[in-house]
Amino acid sequence: MQVMNAEWTTTEETAARKAFDIAYKREIGALIDSVRHRASSVNEIDDMWRLHDFLSIKRHEVDGRYDYQLSMLVFVFAGLVKDGWLSIDELEGLSTDKISKIAALASM
Amino acid sequence: MQVMNAEWTTTEETAARKAFDIAYKREIGALIDSVRHRASSVNEIDDMWRLHDFLSIKRHEVDGRYDYQLSMLVFVFAGLVKDGWLSIDELEGLSTDKISKIAALASM
Repeated sequence: MQVMNAEWTTTEETAARKAFDIAYKREIGALIDSVRHRASSVNEIDDMWRLHDFLSIKRHEVDGRYDYQLSMLVFVFAGLVKDGWLSIDELEGLSTDKISKIAALASM
Repeated sequence: MQVMNAEWTTTEETAARKAFDIAYKREIGALIDSVRHRASSVNEIDDMWRLHDFLSIKRHEVDGRYDYQLSMLVFVFAGLVKDGWLSIDELEGLSTDKISKIAALASM
């Protein structure tokens, strides 16, 4: 896909890093709230292992998603927009071509 | 070891099951309290992954320990006494021979 080999200007890299950090902080914050809430509802062993399963899945997702590599960033941003952790507006500073591709991928 | 092949009378089996259930309920109760406490202190991502690691270890320990098999029960009880989840007094109903062996193993 064309955008995978696209050049990133310094301005774009700065904007990308900022958007990436916003999404990361937002998703992790929501995850911490969710873990606290789930933990407060743990009343028996099955609840505890469900919390463990939930953390296993989220750790895998977060580790996979927040691996900052320019070559994959369009796809990462598309996933973040799709899942509601980032809005298209927050990608301001990226080229219109990249933003269009991210929006298109996010809507798939 | 002699005790591994020891016979269990019906009275002993009843006493063993009761002691096993007491320890299980006690350890799981303490674990739930600990998980709730740890979860309430989660403020950042590293705290969350530490909670995940803690749950992984405890799940492995609990699954291994609370596998009720008569042939292994002397060793299971020794571990439970050693770790403070059961007192020797709570094994009342078992033969003095088994209780002596459990106490000896627990003190190793």
